[in-house]
Parts: sequence; structure tokens; C-alpha cells
Amino acid sequence: MGVKVELAAHTVDTFPPSPPRTVGNSHAGTDDEQEEEDNTPPTPPEERLDQLLKSYTLPPQSTPTQVLAEDLKTPDHRVNRDPRLIRLTGVHPFNVEPPLTELYDEGFLTSENLHYVRNHGSVPHCTDDESLDWTFAVDGLVEKPFTITVRDLIETCDQFTYPVTLVCAGNRRKEQNVVRKSKGFSWGAAGLSTALWTGVPIGALLRMAKPKSAAKYVCFEGADKLPNGYYGTSVKLNWCLDENRGIMVAHKMNGQPLHPDHGKPVRIIIPGQIGGRSVKWLKKITVTAEPSDNWYHIYDNRVLPTTVSPDASVNLPDVWKDERYAIYDLNVNSAICYPRHDERLLLATAPETYKVRGYAYGGGGKRITRVEVTLNKGKSWLLADIHYPEDDYRRAPDGDTLYGGSTDMWWRETSFCWCFWEMSIPVADLGAADDIMIRAMDEGMMVQPRDMYWSVLGMMNNPWFRVVVHKDQGSLRFEHPTQPALMPGGWMERVK
Amino acid sequence: MGVKVELAAHTVDTFPPSPPRTVGNSHAGTDDEQEEEDNTPPTPPEERLDQLLKSYTLPPQSTPTQVLAEDLKTPDHRVNRDPRLIRLTGVHPFNVEPPLTELYDEGFLTSENLHYVRNHGSVPHCTDDESLDWTFAVDGLVEKPFTITVRDLIETCDQFTYPVTLVCAGNRRKEQNVVRKSKGFSWGAAGLSTALWTGVPIGALLRMAKPKSAAKYVCFEGADKLPNGYYGTSVKLNWCLDENRGIMVAHKMNGQPLHPDHGKPVRIIIPGQIGGRSVKWLKKITVTAEPSDNWYHIYDNRVLPTTVSPDASVNLPDVWKDERYAIYDLNVNSAICYPRHDERLLLATAPETYKVRGYAYGGGGKRITRVEVTLNKGKSWLLADIHYPEDDYRRAPDGDTLYGGSTDMWWRETSFCWCFWEMSIPVADLGAADDIMIRAMDEGMMVQPRDMYWSVLGMMNNPWFRVVVHKDQGSLRFEHPTQPALMPGGWMERVK
Repeated sequence: MGVKVELAAHTVDTFPPSPPRTVGNSHAGTDDEQEEEDNTPPTPPEERLDQLLKSYTLPPQSTPTQVLAEDLKTPDHRVNRDPRLIRLTGVHPFNVEPPLTELYDEGFLTSENLHYVRNHGSVPHCTDDESLDWTFAVDGLVEKPFTITVRDLIETCDQFTYPVTLVCAGNRRKEQNVVRKSKGFSWGAAGLSTALWTGVPIGALLRMAKPKSAAKYVCFEGADKLPNGYYGTSVKLNWCLDENRGIMVAHKMNGQPLHPDHGKPVRIIIPGQIGGRSVKWLKKITVTAEPSDNWYHIYDNRVLPTTVSPDASVNLPDVWKDERYAIYDLNVNSAICYPRHDERLLLATAPETYKVRGYAYGGGGKRITRVEVTLNKGKSWLLADIHYPEDDYRRAPDGDTLYGGSTDMWWRETSFCWCFWEMSIPVADLGAADDIMIRAMDEGMMVQPRDMYWSVLGMMNNPWFRVVVHKDQGSLRFEHPTQPALMPGGWMERVK
Repeated sequence: MGVKVELAAHTVDTFPPSPPRTVGNSHAGTDDEQEEEDNTPPTPPEERLDQLLKSYTLPPQSTPTQVLAEDLKTPDHRVNRDPRLIRLTGVHPFNVEPPLTELYDEGFLTSENLHYVRNHGSVPHCTDDESLDWTFAVDGLVEKPFTITVRDLIETCDQFTYPVTLVCAGNRRKEQNVVRKSKGFSWGAAGLSTALWTGVPIGALLRMAKPKSAAKYVCFEGADKLPNGYYGTSVKLNWCLDENRGIMVAHKMNGQPLHPDHGKPVRIIIPGQIGGRSVKWLKKITVTAEPSDNWYHIYDNRVLPTTVSPDASVNLPDVWKDERYAIYDLNVNSAICYPRHDERLLLATAPETYKVRGYAYGGGGKRITRVEVTLNKGKSWLLADIHYPEDDYRRAPDGDTLYGGSTDMWWRETSFCWCFWEMSIPVADLGAADDIMIRAMDEGMMVQPRDMYWSVLGMMNNPWFRVVVHKDQGSLRFEHPTQPALMPGGWMERVK
């Protein structure tokens, strides 16, 4: 788990409680927190003192990494990586998730080492020396198009820092592939990670460019040149202009310049939406009247109707282009992290209760309001405890800074991150059960479905997560549904 | 179905595409559409001409109503009503839904006659003469509290008109009550209706009052005095300040002053949230740091964990007060309207195909992206056609007026209303099926669950809607799950 810091106490008497459009005391480009105090009196109202002194978690230290042997023969031969990451698409391109247990053990924030990576091709090359001179354009249906360097982004714009959980739309896809092969590769349940991102709200850049009246969408394009062109996608202009959504052009991850796999030197971060919209190695922000016509916008990150087969989909360009099937907000999902896959519990020495634990997340800013556990296949449910570590950031006073950006959370009630749930269960009850299944519900009272919604790209897989309980030789052995990539194991392969 | 009107063609060149905070050419207090044209040139860009000439549907005519005999002995003895409405809680208080078929047949917009009603007690009395002098307060954690008359609301504030579907959180509750009695009365599937509402964005009033820094919630209180005080509830301040959400203080419904059952003379309208937050007969808008402590805010409109029984709930005040269980955004839901309950299809004279039809809605502005139909209990699904009549309003040019308010839809991509779906199915296939089941999915890729989430108040019931197909004597007979109130009928009563 990460380091905890105590926050200085400030008074909070700024109006409005709706998002600040500009923040006066952010410290662009500095890494020190609270370098300059603001001028408000240091004595907070007594009733808030206790609240303001709460602490938040900082990221775990990254362990040293190096260029791995298997990367030497690829175009990514300059990129340092962590050998624990599990490769999902062979050696290259680099698509990886961490081991689920190690991800969970890092806690709320994920180090850059273990953060999942979704690369479509090789990593665009940008040295430390080149980073600040990297440019991207803001153009299209705007009155004042401009090109800006990363240096100017940092030095001339107000900076913000807040935690965001990124999730690949393919998280848990392996389960779909076991049922029926989809067009996507096999993510386990660790295709998500949370980091502290520092950057500039995209609304600030768009307002500088002044979108024209016909403007409705914002297209992003990266520097990663692929067989079907540069990777690109779009979201709605209204979302970009809405501070509540927190869409950001980010240049730091966990207080450091971006790692090459995470978009060095600059990328988009979209809380609550699938990772595929958070374009890395950003080169263009283009305002348009229509959604992006980029190949990857149309033929990736969609949930087609379940009846469309992979074969049939080839001849259905109009179905692919139907924006109703494009995925933006995440759907509700959850997984059991402990007991982990193949964990054994010796009954002779086991404590009376076992703490079942895992994560859950909602989409589009929606919070998880309950996680329920069943030991009898859904006939009855038990209510787990939920913990939202991101709430600690909301207790940071307005104007507090972290990694050179204001901690922009105090006014937000929307959720940007995953949460953790746990439940202590008598070991005797676990021993009497065939399986442990969980489901989460969001604040819109939408609950994870019992059954899988299989689709041609295998995305947004979110049925109840099921861990099977085996009894053998005086112990309980737990089995997860799948293992990521081509790794064997998991009850789904046995029952298919 | 309602009347269609042709819109005048305007150019649309106003910036921003994000919501206009003020609109210059609204015509407060007038009922005439387009009474004054704005000054923009009448020739639209050619490529938009076709789009701008599209028409939208106006409300169906209300048929004459009168005070009904059964109301004469109640405190509502002055209120005109439609005898077709089905009473759900005896004679008084007045809680009614229309017959599902008649509701569907009215089309996108519902007349005030057939609009569902949820009253907790007797209707506060307000004559036509008193309406304009009715006052409500804007107070609490604000710098400038004020009291305003309905007259001033109409004459001094910018007015808007748009369609909103209101849905009772208890819609479809009868299904829950058949499985296990909840604490709520038995709504069928017609606890929802759509009207054109005219009024003032609540954000405008709140900005006039200037909320203080600790402000986080907005409480509403009506004039309906009940056993546990005046009816009241709260929503978040950020939502009220967000123009995308469209929360309105309304004084007209379908172009007429509000009917007594619908809040005469003034009420709250909250698109995308449950009807229980749209307080009628508005007397107070109070800004607070905490959610409302009104009895009805705490002990109504909640989805408690499914394990809490009605008996146990009595001793769980902390569970009731847990805001995680309060319902704001609606969840995804849908129903089959045709075939209607007990409809018969003579096979000898039936056409080759039958058009199965119904409604669907999402919550919190989310659109329905697909409705799927299964004739084999979910083994395979068919994709229905979806139609969103509210989109016609988006084609009205910016500044166009209706019932004295700007048609404030052109910039909105969020959904405020129900949609309609249909699918032509070979009669032979219907005859071969045991049942017709449907499920809808929203743009967050959340799908209606197969199984009911029973809860102590029986709210937000949204499992797949199932109509049973009976074959007898050369005909098909269709059976809905339930009939509203204490009306017998429906397959759920037979199989319980």
C-alpha cells in the first residue's frame, strides 16, 4: 500500500461549490505540494478541522525496471518495463495486465510499473529532451485553431491533479472467449489501474480555440501509426466542456513525466469512460460536426448486438458505424481478488472467518452503492462493506496542490475511481458452498447481470464474478473463472 | 396520436453548442408559438434546410373531465378527473395510472387527463384567481434568500419548454408484490407519462440566491401536508446548476396551467430521475449542506438491500438514512404494450406478421441503444427498431418558442423521454413460442436483468418484461405479467 501524507488545514470559503473554472494558486510545473500557501487564514472552522486533517494515499514506489530481453527485437527496444506484467498479444505490440493479486495488493493507486497497457502498435519515440517541445494541435471547427507545446501547456495553463481509474473495455474478455471466440484478445480481470494524473482540463483548451456553432464532437489522434492510420477516436464536445466529467490533457502520472507506454509526453484522460477513448501520444484535438471517421473509432470499442457473429459482422459496415453501439461510459463491474486463483485454505489451521475481497467500479461517474455476495447461486445475498479511497482526496481543501496541480476533488461527488469491497465469511460457510458469486449495483440501481452479454468484440463483459470452491484433502481450493491470455486454468475451461 | 406542426426554418449560428445560459427571444407568459420571429436571416444553410423543416408532435387534446362521484366525499371534491384512470390506493389519496393500451395509443405525449398521478394526500387548494399570487421561497445556505410569486416567475425569468417523461419509482411494482408483498401499492406498467413542461431552469433561481460555500443539496417542499409533515425531498446542488440535466420550476403542462393533480400552480420537474423528486405545489427551495431530513425523503424512494425484510426494516433507521440507497436516476426499463393483456389473435384471419410494440426508457439522460426480443427464454435474441420522438424537438432551431418558452432541445444529446420500439414477428413464430420477453440496454451498456431485485419498498422493478402466449381454439391469447392495483389477471398470479 502507498504512503500517507497529512494535509495542512485550510479554510474553505470559496464560492461556488460547483467546479472552479480557474484556480488561482496552482503551481504549474512544480512537484512540491503546498509550496505556496494561499492567503486565507490558517484556522479552519472548528467543525471542519477534523475532516480537513484526514490524509490521502500517495502512489506506491515504482521499483527499478529495465528493457526486457523479449523487447530487444521489437520497435519498443528502448522501453523499460516490469517483468511481472502478463503479455496478452505475444511479445509485440505490448498489451499487458498485472497479476490480479499484485494489482490488488498495491492498493488504491497503481504504480506505473504494474499499470495495465493497451498499445495497438509500437510506442512512438520521444526522448526526455524532446518532451517539452512535443506539440499537439487544437483545430477543426474552431475560430482560433492553435498548436501548443507541452512546455506551454505546463507553463501557461492551470494545472490539476486527481486520481482516475482507467479500464480497458476488454477487461474480463477471456470469459467471453471461452464461451465463444470473439474478435478480441484475452484480458483477465486485471485490465484496470488507478493513477494520479496531472494536467489541464480539456475544456480550457477548447474554450481558447472557440468552437463554432456546428461543433458537436472532439476527435483525438495519437502519434501511433498503425495499419489503418493513426489511432484516433472521438467523444462529445459537451462532455469536454463539462468540468464535472474531468476530461484532462495529462503530462504526469503519479507525479512523474509519462512513461512511454502510458503516452509520453502527453495524453488524454477520460474518467468513467473506457480506456480506448483516452488517446496516448496526443498529436491532435480536432473539433467536428460528426463523430470521428478514424478506422479505430468505428471498428473498435463497440458492443454490437449479441446476435451478430464474427463472420456476419464483416459485411455490416452500417452496424459498425451506428454510434449507438459505440462504448463511452463503462458499465458496472466487479471481481473477487481474494481468495485468489488456486489459493488453498487448510481447514485444520484456518481462522474462523475468511475475508473475501475485491474491487468494483461504475461508469460515467456513477458510484457503486452496494456489492452483494451469494454462496447459494443467487437464492440469497449478503451485503459487503464498500470503501472509496478517492473520498480521502475530497477532504483535501480547495486549492491544495499535489505534483504541481490543484487537487481538484473537493467539489466533486461523481466517482472517478474503483472502490474496494470486503466481507468476512465463516470458513464453515465457505466450505459448505459450491461457489462465491458477487454482483455490484450502481447509484442508478443498475445491477450486474447474471448472464454474459456476448458480443463480437467481447467487450464490457460484466456478469456476476464466480469463484468455485473445491474441497479436497482437508482444505478448500478456490478457482477463478479464467486466467489471462493463453494461460490455462479456471473453471470456465472445464465446464465449457 | 397528437397533432403535427411544421416549424419555420431559421439559421442556427449561435455559439456555444453547450447550453445557452440565457436566451434572448423567449416570450414569457405568452401561449403563442413564434409570435415574434428573431432577427436572424430566414434562409438556412442549404444542407440543414431539410433537417429544420422536420416537425414535432404536439400533445393530444384533453377530453372534457368533471368531478367524479367517488371524489365528492373526499377532500379532492373540487378536482376534475378522467374516469379511465385506474385507482391504485382506493378512492383517496388519488394514485392512478392509465390503462396501458390507452397510454400507448396517445403516443409520445400524454394528455393531462391520462397522465399518471402520485398524490400522498389531498390536493392543496389553489383557485385560478390565486395561482399567480402563489409564492415559494428560495432560502437556506444562500446569500440572498427571496420569495417569488408565480407571476414574477413567469414575467421576469427566461422561459423554456421541453418534453419530459416522468416515471414513478414504483412503476411495475405489482410484479414485486406478487412475488412477495412489499411496502408499496401495486403499480402496473403504466406508471409513467410524457408532457411538454414550460418553466424556468432551477439554476437561474439558485444563481440569483447565491449559494454559500457549504451548500451541497437543494431541498424541495410542497404544500401537501401529510401525517409526517409536508412532502419534501432533496437533490444535489451540482445537478441543479447543470443545464444538461434540465431541472425546471414548471408552471405549464402541455401548454396549459398545471392541473391540480399535477402541482397547480407550480412544481419541480427533474428529467431522468424518479417522479418522487419532482415536488408538486412547490412552496420552498432550500439550499442545505446535507440531504433533506424530511420523513418522505428518508422513508420513501429507496432501494434497500434485497435481504432487508419489511419487518426487519422497521428497526434499521441507519439503513433508511444511508443515501446510497436513495433513488435519483431511473434505471433502464421497458414494457410490451402490444399485444395487450388478453388480446386474442385468430389464426385463421391473422396477417402473416404481427407487430410487437412497447416503450423503453433509460435513466439520468442515458438513451436506450437497443431493445431485444426473445421467443425462446433468452437463448437467442432479435433486435427491435427504436424510435425517439423527442429527437424531433432537437431539430427545432435555437430560439424557437412553444407555449411561451424556448424549445430548449437543439443542443441536448441527453435523453429526457421514453422511446418506442417495435418488431414485426411472423405469427407462426409467435404461435410456436411460450412467451415473448424483452430487455433494453442503455448507452452505458447496462442491460435489464433477467431476475427481479426485490426490495422492501418494491421500487425500480426492471427485469425482462414477459408476455405469455396461450394457444387455444385456433387463436393466440396473450397474457401480461400482472394487472394494476387489486385487479386480478396476469401469469404471475398463476405461477406464484
